[in-house]
Amino acid sequence: MANDPVYLDNNATTRCDPRVVEAMMPYFSEQFGNASSMHAFGSEVGGALAKARKQLQDLLGAEFDHEIVYTSGGTEADNMAILSALETQKGRDEVITSAVEHPAVLSLVAHLEKTGQARVHIIPVDAKGRLDMEAYRKALGPRTAIVSIMWANNETGTIFPVAKLAEMAHEAGALFHTDAVQAVGKIPMDLKATEIDMLSLSGHKLHGPKGVGALYVRKGVRLRPLVRGGHQERGRRAGTENAPGIIGLGRAAELAGEYMAEEQTRVAALRDRLEEGLLGAISHSFATGDVENRLPNTANVAFEYIEGEAILLLMNREGIAASSGSACTSGSLEPSHVLRAMNVPYTAAHGAIRFSFSRENTQADVDRVLEVMPQIIVRLRDMSPFWREREKEGAFNPTYA
Amino acid sequence: MANDPVYLDNNATTRCDPRVVEAMMPYFSEQFGNASSMHAFGSEVGGALAKARKQLQDLLGAEFDHEIVYTSGGTEADNMAILSALETQKGRDEVITSAVEHPAVLSLVAHLEKTGQARVHIIPVDAKGRLDMEAYRKALGPRTAIVSIMWANNETGTIFPVAKLAEMAHEAGALFHTDAVQAVGKIPMDLKATEIDMLSLSGHKLHGPKGVGALYVRKGVRLRPLVRGGHQERGRRAGTENAPGIIGLGRAAELAGEYMAEEQTRVAALRDRLEEGLLGAISHSFATGDVENRLPNTANVAFEYIEGEAILLLMNREGIAASSGSACTSGSLEPSHVLRAMNVPYTAAHGAIRFSFSRENTQADVDRVLEVMPQIIVRLRDMSPFWREREKEGAFNPTYA
Repeated sequence: MANDPVYLDNNATTRCDPRVVEAMMPYFSEQFGNASSMHAFGSEVGGALAKARKQLQDLLGAEFDHEIVYTSGGTEADNMAILSALETQKGRDEVITSAVEHPAVLSLVAHLEKTGQARVHIIPVDAKGRLDMEAYRKALGPRTAIVSIMWANNETGTIFPVAKLAEMAHEAGALFHTDAVQAVGKIPMDLKATEIDMLSLSGHKLHGPKGVGALYVRKGVRLRPLVRGGHQERGRRAGTENAPGIIGLGRAAELAGEYMAEEQTRVAALRDRLEEGLLGAISHSFATGDVENRLPNTANVAFEYIEGEAILLLMNREGIAASSGSACTSGSLEPSHVLRAMNVPYTAAHGAIRFSFSRENTQADVDRVLEVMPQIIVRLRDMSPFWREREKEGAFNPTYA
Repeated sequence: MANDPVYLDNNATTRCDPRVVEAMMPYFSEQFGNASSMHAFGSEVGGALAKARKQLQDLLGAEFDHEIVYTSGGTEADNMAILSALETQKGRDEVITSAVEHPAVLSLVAHLEKTGQARVHIIPVDAKGRLDMEAYRKALGPRTAIVSIMWANNETGTIFPVAKLAEMAHEAGALFHTDAVQAVGKIPMDLKATEIDMLSLSGHKLHGPKGVGALYVRKGVRLRPLVRGGHQERGRRAGTENAPGIIGLGRAAELAGEYMAEEQTRVAALRDRLEEGLLGAISHSFATGDVENRLPNTANVAFEYIEGEAILLLMNREGIAASSGSACTSGSLEPSHVLRAMNVPYTAAHGAIRFSFSRENTQADVDRVLEVMPQIIVRLRDMSPFWREREKEGAFNPTYA
């Protein structure tokens, strides 16, 4: 009998919760009107959109519902935040970000630097992926338009002290944006108690639909649209409202709130059991990132002297999905930019696997991975010239044999 | 017994075809993987995305499937096309467009002009909404980066000679973009037989889902991304692929192809019957736009001396949905910029109503509108000071009494 597939790649995308799909369904073919229209077909959608906005507001702890601007996803929100700040912050042309951001931030700022539109400071991280606070403090100054630092890293789950970072940005007169695509729905938030100016999120990372996200923009913060046209979203983001997507995101936010405690306990416990099991059974493996301060759902384990892509291939044959690095940069043979920034040795960074859980995972998933992973690692190491070299030298005494 | 609602606002948005929703459904909660991922959950989506791309390619008559870049909708596609051309067309900083474009183009170019990023030529139209070809010819020149002229107007349905306009743009070394949001799926297209460089479309205007659209970019035309990040869409549009949306758009394109002949015959006949019926029954009303050369589904009828918003309100009470002007500018008390550009007299432009059909409309819909509209117009004219004034002067001899 074939085993059930095991999905441990929830930081790449999550299964859209059937309750989310159910909430969206009436807005495809029944209440399908354009929300901007004057007639009943349009106006009946308005109430559902208002409810969805409130649901997302509650998850974020935002003070006002109009602080939410819907976008097509996290990447658009990140782009909008940074480009807007460079336009609205007169006399300021510098961007501060970290070395471990998502490509949605790093690709954009690389382009801005290359084309002379901004000067960019990339703040390094330490071996655990924690921001170099001294370097951050030094980079802040009267030319800083915006700081964009993620709430939690997508590869290691390491959490950044965004509330503190926002206060420091404000002392320098800069705006503070956070890519919270991985954090929203996984850890509690209360934006109104922070000084964060802008925050990006994505529906499909929290069991909502793909193709919808949002940029939180604190009341009073000026926003220059990235996409211009009609008056939707109070003139901040043009284009016919994606009503099913927005309504699905609202329901997903509501569900994320309901599961928040479980995420911190049961999901974290599953993750810990997997990580401990792997590290106990497989020699020359270690957890990367700040294991004391990370998302409850993420483990990133480096298996030395083998290739992550090969590990994933053999895992895939067993029906187990995980990832090496970000889905958005897959296909590249380079090891993850996040692990390189942490100075994880090349021979380990190449063999790092991210296991990312969700509320849908079970103990059976953990058991299954623990059953097959040691064999996969042995098999690949047996084929690895690096590993044989070391074995011959007598340097290793594998505990998994 | 209450009458069934009548939906004649298909240029604002269409009902998502249940067959489209059915095609999308498996990609929410079953085959939900990130298409960029290395494992089975991701790669099994790839085949469906390739099929959807082919379906859209076929509807457009594009030569290559990679000429399609998915976006969040028509507005984003319009913005991307124009901004890209200004960046890639070195030494050229002028944009040519028409006075009757959608706000997705006109708002953007107004911003570009205001901020000194481009010089903009707005080509006028005649009383039927046809482009002033002489003015267009004169505006073209060595500084023209891009021409952006719609394939068909959203308010009147008037069709522009885009193939010819594209040839003229190329003679001047300019790129040619067309906002074909209203045309795609309503009239046959064969892009490979034209010189059109870029074309925008939107899923929800052709019975597909909201929140997804595309920019066709002819092979060889350089495109600068509007949204930067991961490598999706061959590096031209970052962000996790909206798989359900893209797959729904593909199915919608396929269905639009199947219904193309019906759109030109049965739908056009319904439209004609409604228009003739209204003009015959209601005095001081006339069709706007180029009735000899327009979309098969659109009629725009001006009822003189009354307010369009009031007409819509009374129609809405009867369960009939139509519009005045564009949904994206509703709420404004100004008459439509399209009708103003056509020099439709103020007293008529204010009372213009757009009836836009789709394959889902029936003869019963037409009958119902013809039953209630004359009464609505009489009632409103009885309350209209403009109308009474004219009546007193003996200028009118209403035929509808």
